[in-house]
Amino acid sequence: MEALKTTSPSPASASGLELKNPEPLEENKRLSIIAFSGDFDKLVAAFTLASGAAAVGYEVSVFFTFWGLNVIRKAKGRKPIGKGVLARFFNFLQGGSRKVPLSRLNFGGLSPRLMTHMMKKRNVATLPELVDASIALGVNLYACEMSMNILGTEHTDFIPEVREVIGVATFLRYSSGGERVFI
Amino acid sequence: MEALKTTSPSPASASGLELKNPEPLEENKRLSIIAFSGDFDKLVAAFTLASGAAAVGYEVSVFFTFWGLNVIRKAKGRKPIGKGVLARFFNFLQGGSRKVPLSRLNFGGLSPRLMTHMMKKRNVATLPELVDASIALGVNLYACEMSMNILGTEHTDFIPEVREVIGVATFLRYSSGGERVFI
Amino acid sequence: MEALKTTSPSPASASGLELKNPEPLEENKRLSIIAFSGDFDKLVAAFTLASGAAAVGYEVSVFFTFWGLNVIRKAKGRKPIGKGVLARFFNFLQGGSRKVPLSRLNFGGLSPRLMTHMMKKRNVATLPELVDASIALGVNLYACEMSMNILGTEHTDFIPEVREVIGVATFLRYSSGGERVFI
Repeated sequence: MEALKTTSPSPASASGLELKNPEPLEENKRLSIIAFSGDFDKLVAAFTLASGAAAVGYEVSVFFTFWGLNVIRKAKGRKPIGKGVLARFFNFLQGGSRKVPLSRLNFGGLSPRLMTHMMKKRNVATLPELVDASIALGVNLYACEMSMNILGTEHTDFIPEVREVIGVATFLRYSSGGERVFI
Repeated sequence: MEALKTTSPSPASASGLELKNPEPLEENKRLSIIAFSGDFDKLVAAFTLASGAAAVGYEVSVFFTFWGLNVIRKAKGRKPIGKGVLARFFNFLQGGSRKVPLSRLNFGGLSPRLMTHMMKKRNVATLPELVDASIALGVNLYACEMSMNILGTEHTDFIPEVREVIGVATFLRYSSGGERVFI
Repeated sequence: MEALKTTSPSPASASGLELKNPEPLEENKRLSIIAFSGDFDKLVAAFTLASGAAAVGYEVSVFFTFWGLNVIRKAKGRKPIGKGVLARFFNFLQGGSRKVPLSRLNFGGLSPRLMTHMMKKRNVATLPELVDASIALGVNLYACEMSMNILGTEHTDFIPEVREVIGVATFLRYSSGGERVFI
């Protein structure tokens, strides 16, 4: 609380040059995000947090599972990837990173485009830019083995920056000692 | 595990008078909630956690982003605040803290009112009461700079209890050494 | 940390032969999941994380609140449990663990069944199997007092494996010193 007040004047924020760290509590510099959601707005939140944390020196990992896998697919539009009719159907419906819906007030996919328009107008990084920034800043991307089993997809269906396909035990080991956030 | 068993008999719970703390693990008394959702039920969960933690001695911060900003707007009803036509449109649609929907079974806004009715009947604090309790207990409220940029809103559009408008780096610094929960 | 090294050789979970542990950070072996969501896919994620963590030596607790309570109800189908007309109505609508919807592309409840079909085909544990595995692995199940007050339900409405009905303060005490994840 007192620390909070003394650090407030710092104009660090977005870019985050932090020359001193007056926090009395022990610093935890590992952050792992479970990116479960495939919603546009939640993905923007996930990648803003990921890139922002990486920019100020955190070791950041994003573990994509379920709908979240959609944003790291090579195929950015609708494509029936995967093995099995049902899997191909679900993968087609999800539609790739260009088709991510807003979690509310989606209006049939219009809103994410309007939102992106507003982000550009305000000079806020768009979702693809946030993904690129996260990769450039060294954020580790992992894909969830179990979800991929269910949806019949393979490592090669995803962008090459996805380092590894891992299960829960490995995720827990990679993220141990740090913060875990489910988005 | 063993500690868990020994502490179980304590009748603390809801009210939370905890005279001793028999936990062997290191206590972490800082909790930061990223309030992303604008859903009635998730906001009730966020403020129940925030006020409950503050009541038992935690330093609690709530960082409002995206839809979550809706609940700390000065204008409690629908109002087209913000700069730019699209921003005003989205801000109008969100509708302020009196219009937050249930995440499921919303029935056009009827359910949050029914839910509030049930909460009053059972003597459970309603959402506005939980917000007030959180503020009274010293929970720090922060608004997300980036979301406000996108939606064209300003510090003055929010209730005066919002201490500061901050970015990701500042949020990470303020919440460092503690738990971070995304709701 | 030391505990981690000695427990690592365990041949646990999904991928899991972990012969060495090169992690420098301090290990945190307590994980608490706030199971707020009643969605099929999020519950699969919650129980996959819970059972996976328990399998590699974590002390795991799941705290069911709001819609999440639905999955631990004794009545697996639609049943108007609870006190009060409104409570009975909401409890009926939620429908028990056999009626949990997918958070997206639910198609009137068809998708969870298709998803379960795909999970069986790929030899991935289904939701009831994940719940059973979590219980068998010693995951502690708790129910949220406040949500139960609102919905007029009692301890006896839930499966007997639910150890205790607790409030926020008790949840914070039980989960202190560990990771807390909101799903």
